[in-house]
Amino acid sequence: MMLQAETLHEAAAILDLIGVAVFAVTGALVAARRQMDPIGFIIVGTATAIGGGTMRDLVLGVRPVFWVTDQSFLVVSVLASLATFWAARSIRRIFKALLWMDAVGMAMFAVAGTQKATNLGAGPVVAVLMGVMTASFGGLLRDVLCGEKPLLFHREIYATAALIGAGLWLALEPAGLAPEVRSILGFVAAFGVRAAAIRWGISLPNYRHPEA
Amino acid sequence: MMLQAETLHEAAAILDLIGVAVFAVTGALVAARRQMDPIGFIIVGTATAIGGGTMRDLVLGVRPVFWVTDQSFLVVSVLASLATFWAARSIRRIFKALLWMDAVGMAMFAVAGTQKATNLGAGPVVAVLMGVMTASFGGLLRDVLCGEKPLLFHREIYATAALIGAGLWLALEPAGLAPEVRSILGFVAAFGVRAAAIRWGISLPNYRHPEA
Amino acid sequence: MMLQAETLHEAAAILDLIGVAVFAVTGALVAARRQMDPIGFIIVGTATAIGGGTMRDLVLGVRPVFWVTDQSFLVVSVLASLATFWAARSIRRIFKALLWMDAVGMAMFAVAGTQKATNLGAGPVVAVLMGVMTASFGGLLRDVLCGEKPLLFHREIYATAALIGAGLWLALEPAGLAPEVRSILGFVAAFGVRAAAIRWGISLPNYRHPEA
Repeated sequence: MMLQAETLHEAAAILDLIGVAVFAVTGALVAARRQMDPIGFIIVGTATAIGGGTMRDLVLGVRPVFWVTDQSFLVVSVLASLATFWAARSIRRIFKALLWMDAVGMAMFAVAGTQKATNLGAGPVVAVLMGVMTASFGGLLRDVLCGEKPLLFHREIYATAALIGAGLWLALEPAGLAPEVRSILGFVAAFGVRAAAIRWGISLPNYRHPEA
Repeated sequence: MMLQAETLHEAAAILDLIGVAVFAVTGALVAARRQMDPIGFIIVGTATAIGGGTMRDLVLGVRPVFWVTDQSFLVVSVLASLATFWAARSIRRIFKALLWMDAVGMAMFAVAGTQKATNLGAGPVVAVLMGVMTASFGGLLRDVLCGEKPLLFHREIYATAALIGAGLWLALEPAGLAPEVRSILGFVAAFGVRAAAIRWGISLPNYRHPEA
Repeated sequence: MMLQAETLHEAAAILDLIGVAVFAVTGALVAARRQMDPIGFIIVGTATAIGGGTMRDLVLGVRPVFWVTDQSFLVVSVLASLATFWAARSIRRIFKALLWMDAVGMAMFAVAGTQKATNLGAGPVVAVLMGVMTASFGGLLRDVLCGEKPLLFHREIYATAALIGAGLWLALEPAGLAPEVRSILGFVAAFGVRAAAIRWGISLPNYRHPEA
């Protein structure tokens, strides 16, 4: 049983690193579109990968932030960003696969961020925001750094999906489920909403000027 | 007397929340101009409302930041931002009123930020900057997130008004006034300068290239 | 001997302040190009000067950040920024000198940031990033605040020079050198690489779209 728990733990840690790597690649692809140099790839990729979790840790008062404690997140981000510099062409060919892997990362981090905030004693509104932040503010930082109109603010069911996953995870608290089951349900909700948005091109309505 | 102190405290807390709501609305109105979706309204509005105080708490080492400790700031920001999505048209009709309420919020936060920094042992230069930061860096964050030329850097007596209010509050320290009186004088100075700037269109000179 | 150590310490502190002032001037010159008002000069100049070290302290969990503990960094940044408002024309005439002084500041902060992170127990990858962050993220913040395409991401051997100085400083750890010697070697490496890049216009290759 001990062994099993440890294996689960290790599997979760590996999934975390894969999620971070995928986020770094999505960041580095924007650096490629902007024709940056390798330093640009590393900074934008890494900011995309660990930016959301960094903001979460800062506002929650976790010191130092997670990637100072465990360097593997930083190493994986830098390597994935640099690999994209050399292989952006091939990576673009698997763009579809990347989009789905990004959705997996988003859903994982939405649940993980909410859970971390709750464990640190944050109230439910803060905890949900921390889930959304972990899942999506790295991408916001990427767009601000690259001078792009933030995807998060327009036509993208992304933060909304993270919100739903985080909210469900919290709402299930009184249900007395095993923690793993609850996490999986939150993950499935976030991923499912995002998957539907990708598959059928669903988006939130943008604000329209009345005069328009 | 106890009752009175408590009532004052409660009144101050309610004013704080009103100030945060007004800041959120000013942020959400920029989101409206940029035709964002509701998530964009929430993120930009909330960043405008609590961004300045968040930066202040981070650099001062307050952990966690104020809105993690008291969720009402976050709740009010999100609700005010969302309300703007549905009612931006009517809100724009009361734009003048909003401009004045924003000046009230700015003046309140300039004094409150300086006071908080001083209570935490910060020196006078840092304390004044913390007042300016609390009062005006949410608006700076709003403009950066929306890709707008920051209002704070051009032709606007805004940070300057916050600076004067914060500075007066500090300068009055040796005067031995009651804390409430000192806070009111700082508030009046910041609000008065901003009001004059709005009323008579006063602004600081911009830098001009010698060749121009 | 005590006296000598103290003198060295004081000399280092003065160099630090000069580096901060030079960074503030480079920030304020971008504010001049953007025709900002004095508040814009102060905010952009100060953010350039102390932004990198602030981010470093935040992620490492140093509380409060360095310029709250020692106000002189803030005072020097504000004064240097304001002086640029009045004297930008003359400063532009010494642009070449400024470029070299900026290189000195970068090299100093790369070593100092790495050292601070190491003293706080950070691992080598984090420590190198902290050196790069201290040396170059103020300039990144400047460009984001001013809506400029970040210099750091394109054609500039700047972060790379910081990286090499920081890396050398770390690599020399097992060599058992006196701390001052190690710091000087790290400084010389960072400055030398940057100097070569300025002198001969060397840059990293930008990413090129395969289709282009």
